[in-house]
Amino acid sequence: MPDITLEQAQISIRAALEKAESINTKMCIAVVDTGGNLKAFVRMEKAWLGSIDIAMKKAKTSRYFDMPTGEIGEMSQPGRELFNIEISNDGLITFPGGLPLTNRDDEVIGAIGVSGSTVSNDLIVAEAGETALSGHFLYSEKKV
Amino acid sequence: MPDITLEQAQISIRAALEKAESINTKMCIAVVDTGGNLKAFVRMEKAWLGSIDIAMKKAKTSRYFDMPTGEIGEMSQPGRELFNIEISNDGLITFPGGLPLTNRDDEVIGAIGVSGSTVSNDLIVAEAGETALSGHFLYSEKKV
Amino acid sequence: MPDITLEQAQISIRAALEKAESINTKMCIAVVDTGGNLKAFVRMEKAWLGSIDIAMKKAKTSRYFDMPTGEIGEMSQPGRELFNIEISNDGLITFPGGLPLTNRDDEVIGAIGVSGSTVSNDLIVAEAGETALSGHFLYSEKKV
Amino acid sequence: MPDITLEQAQISIRAALEKAESINTKMCIAVVDTGGNLKAFVRMEKAWLGSIDIAMKKAKTSRYFDMPTGEIGEMSQPGRELFNIEISNDGLITFPGGLPLTNRDDEVIGAIGVSGSTVSNDLIVAEAGETALSGHFLYSEKKV
Repeated sequence: MPDITLEQAQISIRAALEKAESINTKMCIAVVDTGGNLKAFVRMEKAWLGSIDIAMKKAKTSRYFDMPTGEIGEMSQPGRELFNIEISNDGLITFPGGLPLTNRDDEVIGAIGVSGSTVSNDLIVAEAGETALSGHFLYSEKKV
Repeated sequence: MPDITLEQAQISIRAALEKAESINTKMCIAVVDTGGNLKAFVRMEKAWLGSIDIAMKKAKTSRYFDMPTGEIGEMSQPGRELFNIEISNDGLITFPGGLPLTNRDDEVIGAIGVSGSTVSNDLIVAEAGETALSGHFLYSEKKV
Repeated sequence: MPDITLEQAQISIRAALEKAESINTKMCIAVVDTGGNLKAFVRMEKAWLGSIDIAMKKAKTSRYFDMPTGEIGEMSQPGRELFNIEISNDGLITFPGGLPLTNRDDEVIGAIGVSGSTVSNDLIVAEAGETALSGHFLYSEKKV
Repeated sequence: MPDITLEQAQISIRAALEKAESINTKMCIAVVDTGGNLKAFVRMEKAWLGSIDIAMKKAKTSRYFDMPTGEIGEMSQPGRELFNIEISNDGLITFPGGLPLTNRDDEVIGAIGVSGSTVSNDLIVAEAGETALSGHFLYSEKKV
């Protein structure tokens, strides 16, 4: 089972932090590993305290189902097939801002969760973290 | 009080596992007893980590109300009589995939909960587990 | 990161069950994977209900620190260096009955937790589960 | 209210990481702010999963009482005045490895918590994080 390293988690977090600054937001950013356990976390100055737990739960939720949190949120609306799934697993967060992280073989090695602004901004910052890690794998591959 | 045995729980789980494999899904499967307490559990390779708790909660929910989880889910929608019942009992899951298990006298002796795919697939696998146990009782009866 | 398969978990559980029966005890037996998440679980007839959670917590505790639970328990006594560590991680169990499970390269791939009798019996049954899996790896190795 | 910045938390964590590597340990390192809320966290490869929560709880405990965790642990032993204080605050950890972090005016601005080895190693690594931050303040002061 492949797993994310601390170096890789930090590549992802660093890129997410830069994006968060560039769009003038104050974020909490969490990365979990393959087992869904916390690998790394940062909170920017003046980020909402309530976002600490949400960022972690977004990362966990994304790894627990290997999909973007927002996709689960669409299916958990009233009348949809996964209504109130958020109650499970000691609490899930199913709005956007959580994304799986994959290696060069497209295997899930963890997930990133971002909270602190609008959900669209949260997602933009999570995508920056995800893209940086994909780029890192691509670059490492080329080097060899 | 009639209660499921471990052997019966394993008959149900084995049939559910076979069905899960035959429809190419990766499932978590839980069986609880008459008291609603976990009797047996298995997680297939690459099943969603988030499905561990959901399978257990589906089984618990089904036994707690002696009905398929999906029936409760219909009554827990916004505006319906059981709105947000999921918040009770340390968390219920009310979408399909949980079914009561009964003995030959049609008494509830436990429940099965399945999670890991679409809710329709979850239900198909749960039904396979329920049917196998019913068949076992039927067969044992005939034997005597 | 190596991880236990369901087949391997079941080899371990089956051996533990046989040992439990042979010494006339009623056990709960849990196996977790590398990430500390539940892989498989069984409860024998008339096993204590309170042992469901203890077996799971023993397995989790053993994997969380990659050592037998009893070793942690010695260090967590009053006046010792890890006093009251049990309060962490949503509850640990630090008396004997939890053991790491390793593959043929001696890497931890999960853990087994047993509860339902005296702690010495719990440990005997956990050892049976651990030994069976080691033997399985040894045998598979020879086959090649 | 003075408070730790993310940059300062990272100075502390970086120094702790270097110390952990230099003494060949695998650590979880957490920093909380003045409010006791998580500011930053890292987990090294192969660090115990159980240390994630313990590192966080050590940092929280140290800030909640503005003293090294080990000092509280001495007072929480059987027969002492704070017996079983660990049960409060959703769980405290009172063995060594948590230290307050202060600014140049000696005001507490947060705390660091380290877990992953013997408690004496945990403390050495926490001290490295604490010392680095003190040095940073000293150096910044001189610069002006």
